[in-house]
Amino acid sequence: MDITRYLERRRAEVDKAIRKFLPPHGAGKPSGLHDAMRYAVLSGGKRVRPVLALAACEAVGGRARDVMPAACAIEFIHSYSLVHDDLPCMDDDDERRGSPTCHRKFGEDTALLAGDALLTLAFTTLASPTNGAALTTRAAARRLEALRRVADAAGVHGMVGGQAVDMAYQGREPDLPTLEYINTHKSGALIAVSAEVGAYLGGGTLSQVRAIHRYGRAVGLLFQIVDDILDREGYAKLIGVPEARKEAQDLLAKAKKYVEPFGGKGRALAALADFVFMRTY
Amino acid sequence: MDITRYLERRRAEVDKAIRKFLPPHGAGKPSGLHDAMRYAVLSGGKRVRPVLALAACEAVGGRARDVMPAACAIEFIHSYSLVHDDLPCMDDDDERRGSPTCHRKFGEDTALLAGDALLTLAFTTLASPTNGAALTTRAAARRLEALRRVADAAGVHGMVGGQAVDMAYQGREPDLPTLEYINTHKSGALIAVSAEVGAYLGGGTLSQVRAIHRYGRAVGLLFQIVDDILDREGYAKLIGVPEARKEAQDLLAKAKKYVEPFGGKGRALAALADFVFMRTY
Repeated sequence: MDITRYLERRRAEVDKAIRKFLPPHGAGKPSGLHDAMRYAVLSGGKRVRPVLALAACEAVGGRARDVMPAACAIEFIHSYSLVHDDLPCMDDDDERRGSPTCHRKFGEDTALLAGDALLTLAFTTLASPTNGAALTTRAAARRLEALRRVADAAGVHGMVGGQAVDMAYQGREPDLPTLEYINTHKSGALIAVSAEVGAYLGGGTLSQVRAIHRYGRAVGLLFQIVDDILDREGYAKLIGVPEARKEAQDLLAKAKKYVEPFGGKGRALAALADFVFMRTY
Repeated sequence: MDITRYLERRRAEVDKAIRKFLPPHGAGKPSGLHDAMRYAVLSGGKRVRPVLALAACEAVGGRARDVMPAACAIEFIHSYSLVHDDLPCMDDDDERRGSPTCHRKFGEDTALLAGDALLTLAFTTLASPTNGAALTTRAAARRLEALRRVADAAGVHGMVGGQAVDMAYQGREPDLPTLEYINTHKSGALIAVSAEVGAYLGGGTLSQVRAIHRYGRAVGLLFQIVDDILDREGYAKLIGVPEARKEAQDLLAKAKKYVEPFGGKGRALAALADFVFMRTY
């Protein structure tokens, strides 16, 4: 399958949905905050997480519209984390994807609040009806469970926890267990939960959701290791590039094995794992 | 009724529940973040918002345990907002309630992340079962709706929006409509939704929930105006102290009128409005 074309198509769907949930441009007070939120979410980004969610939904034969709010919510969480990570008290970055970071463009106070507002918007979005139609009681209960899993992956036991440990090790080399903690939490948890809730909200069975969650964990770790190989950082620095490459290959094989039972419907998930491994984007 | 004793009793219940939801002290990685979260939530605070939620539940004859997770979640949101407001890029405060602010004690990066983690924890808490027992489908659907209302009150159309407008007016005087926007959003929205979801999750009828939401809006505004009178700021500065006092009296009367139909069960809500008006604490 042509994964680039698949990504393009899915990304366009996601971007369309994202725009519906964001506060519109020029919609009154507080306009600076609205603009900063839109800037943080709409200036680039491959939408890897929402596309994973949609591909996972596809694998279990679900409907994209049941997953889209969660997919957008996860992208809002990813965006907020980048805005806060770039702040002077964190990584102090001036540029992201070739453009000024949110705080360089809108000021630190507005960037801080834009991050807070995006994180909050993620949960509004997860709790909102799709296309204006009220949720059935059953669908609402599923949403609540999906939301709980997303919040868990984003919070102190997930992404923010990983970020805190990463910050604590600035300027010194973490040992392997610490590095694994950072990798599975800082970036891995949100990637894993993207695939998981895609399968869950798509109506997957318990064992299907489990398999796709495992796939997501492998892809999340793969994502980080490929980053490390490209930057000669983290894993690649600690165990060497050849070893890290071998680890990446193992993770890729694992990820693909988990989605094998889904046959043709799991094709996009398998191709996405290849894509993360190749990192040609 | 003895409102001080009532507040004490309810506050103890809330604090007990809050401790269950917070990451425990000394519970492994990332311990600095855990400590900062606990510090932000557990060092003082009157728990006005959770107590309002519990009193609203009482007014509709509901069970406190159905409301407690939402009550704690709202306190986590309130706590995160204080941590972020105190940061150098916002109000740059060194002390809160006579102790060092979170960033003075734990560093700016940890304080930022502790705020993020508390906001996320609020939604984990709102989505979690009470006392470990799984939620019925019906209860889960109610939780999702309560969560949506809380997220709405906390985000860009509520608290964060009010905060952004307030920051934009630093160093110049806002006009009356702007000041009203700030008051109803920055502090008012979260107070109003506390009462509202307390009634909603307590099983109140549509018209009961509406009345208590109106009560909450009046109390939220009252809270801010009393603050302004004490500080000779905002409202009191713009329309003068005697006018602001009159406004406060009107709001108190309004709030009490809304809860009159609840009779004896609404006694705590009425007493809480009096208490906010007197601000003897």
